[in-house]
Amino acid sequence: MADITGATSILLMLADPVSHIRGTILINDALAALGLDAVIVPIHVTPTDLETFLASARRMQNVAGLGITIPHKIAACVLVDELTPVARRMGATNFVRRNADGTLTGTNTDGAGFMEGLRVNGFDATGKRALLVGTGGVGRAIAFGLAEAGLARLDVMNRDRGKAEALATEVQAAFPSCRVDLADASSLKAADLLVNGTSLGMKTSDPLPLELASLTDRTTVAEVVVQPAMTRLLSDAAARGCPIIAGAEMLKPQPAIVAEFFGLLRRDG
Amino acid sequence: MADITGATSILLMLADPVSHIRGTILINDALAALGLDAVIVPIHVTPTDLETFLASARRMQNVAGLGITIPHKIAACVLVDELTPVARRMGATNFVRRNADGTLTGTNTDGAGFMEGLRVNGFDATGKRALLVGTGGVGRAIAFGLAEAGLARLDVMNRDRGKAEALATEVQAAFPSCRVDLADASSLKAADLLVNGTSLGMKTSDPLPLELASLTDRTTVAEVVVQPAMTRLLSDAAARGCPIIAGAEMLKPQPAIVAEFFGLLRRDG
Repeated sequence: MADITGATSILLMLADPVSHIRGTILINDALAALGLDAVIVPIHVTPTDLETFLASARRMQNVAGLGITIPHKIAACVLVDELTPVARRMGATNFVRRNADGTLTGTNTDGAGFMEGLRVNGFDATGKRALLVGTGGVGRAIAFGLAEAGLARLDVMNRDRGKAEALATEVQAAFPSCRVDLADASSLKAADLLVNGTSLGMKTSDPLPLELASLTDRTTVAEVVVQPAMTRLLSDAAARGCPIIAGAEMLKPQPAIVAEFFGLLRRDG
Repeated sequence: MADITGATSILLMLADPVSHIRGTILINDALAALGLDAVIVPIHVTPTDLETFLASARRMQNVAGLGITIPHKIAACVLVDELTPVARRMGATNFVRRNADGTLTGTNTDGAGFMEGLRVNGFDATGKRALLVGTGGVGRAIAFGLAEAGLARLDVMNRDRGKAEALATEVQAAFPSCRVDLADASSLKAADLLVNGTSLGMKTSDPLPLELASLTDRTTVAEVVVQPAMTRLLSDAAARGCPIIAGAEMLKPQPAIVAEFFGLLRRDG
């Protein structure tokens, strides 16, 4: 990490609780690797204090922006001044830019991070078919990200069928060019891409997010669980000969995406 | 600097303007050298926003405390919940601890830093005679620090004679064991220690803080100006064979003093 001076762009990552946070290491390493004089620091802010904190943060003139983590991602949406289309669609923001006039603009980089992780690992979603398990916050971001990237067909699966239906309807309405269905027994066999968008796999005692009997080696398997790096889903998929993409791959691109959003980094092309 | 995680104690240094701030580098290096998982980060807070900021800072549970710089040192005194005796005496606070209950306690470490800088450089004030030039914020801190440390005689000098008299009266009242006078023509020759407590010397075009004709090599000369490290006062004194103590020497001990005050460091003895 570079020296921190008055010229450094400060990013504050809001969380509650805060003591387990380690993602700041990855982000700081990435900011340094991008050659930026910027640092991200965790700040413990409770839900009760979020509004007061944001009022104060609007006036911190060397703060480029905020990282928003659990449990603030949804609440922050109504407290910022503006949302990007993707954050509005998600109903959740994970990064908030402090504009020069002190206003705050929230965005959501989960979908863009996931898509960039796919790209870096050689998977092009254009015209492909995907099966997404899990339609919570990250699952939503991935569904919209895939559809926007030109996926031909998306099958969604959730233990709560109503939630899966609701997401399918939303994505279908936003991206008519992608056919969106509820997953059925044939979805896995036909998928070019399987994505676990649930938290299953964080604990070694977790069941698999879905039954893998019909998984073949033509399916790339991507994971959102970051810890452990090799979930049971990924190791079972690797044993079947599937290309696998670990959860960290969707995080790695996000510092550059965020730095660009915050105006710290101008990307070529 | 160590990795910044959710377990790191965060210190925020408030300033306006902020872009010139470089003292955070020294403090971060010192915190790391002390083996502490702590980092200080500058935050640009204007005087108008100080009260709102402090209200928010009371609730930042991983923030151990605040560094207070220009122009907030005096204003912060009335906004915190409690002042240490030394901060009350100074009417200025340069570090504010965030207590576990969210209250804020302001202290002032300038005097303690200066005294520790003397000690490290082998100067023991006990029973000695000193001439202090400059009775502004830092000069006040040094006057009280010297008197508290057992100085026998203190002569104070200021272009504004009324201010020098006021400080002499205050210090005399607080520490009757130290004889405090206004400086006269004989003060420099008799001094074991000469302290420049003014900002004269920051610019190369500055005049000397006082006429050095009667300075002899039995007088240790200490400086509060940090940049340049070798002021004209110090180089003239060194040319006369005086022991000299640079301005940075009063800054170096302060991270450890602050870490102890913030409860991050327990010092032996």
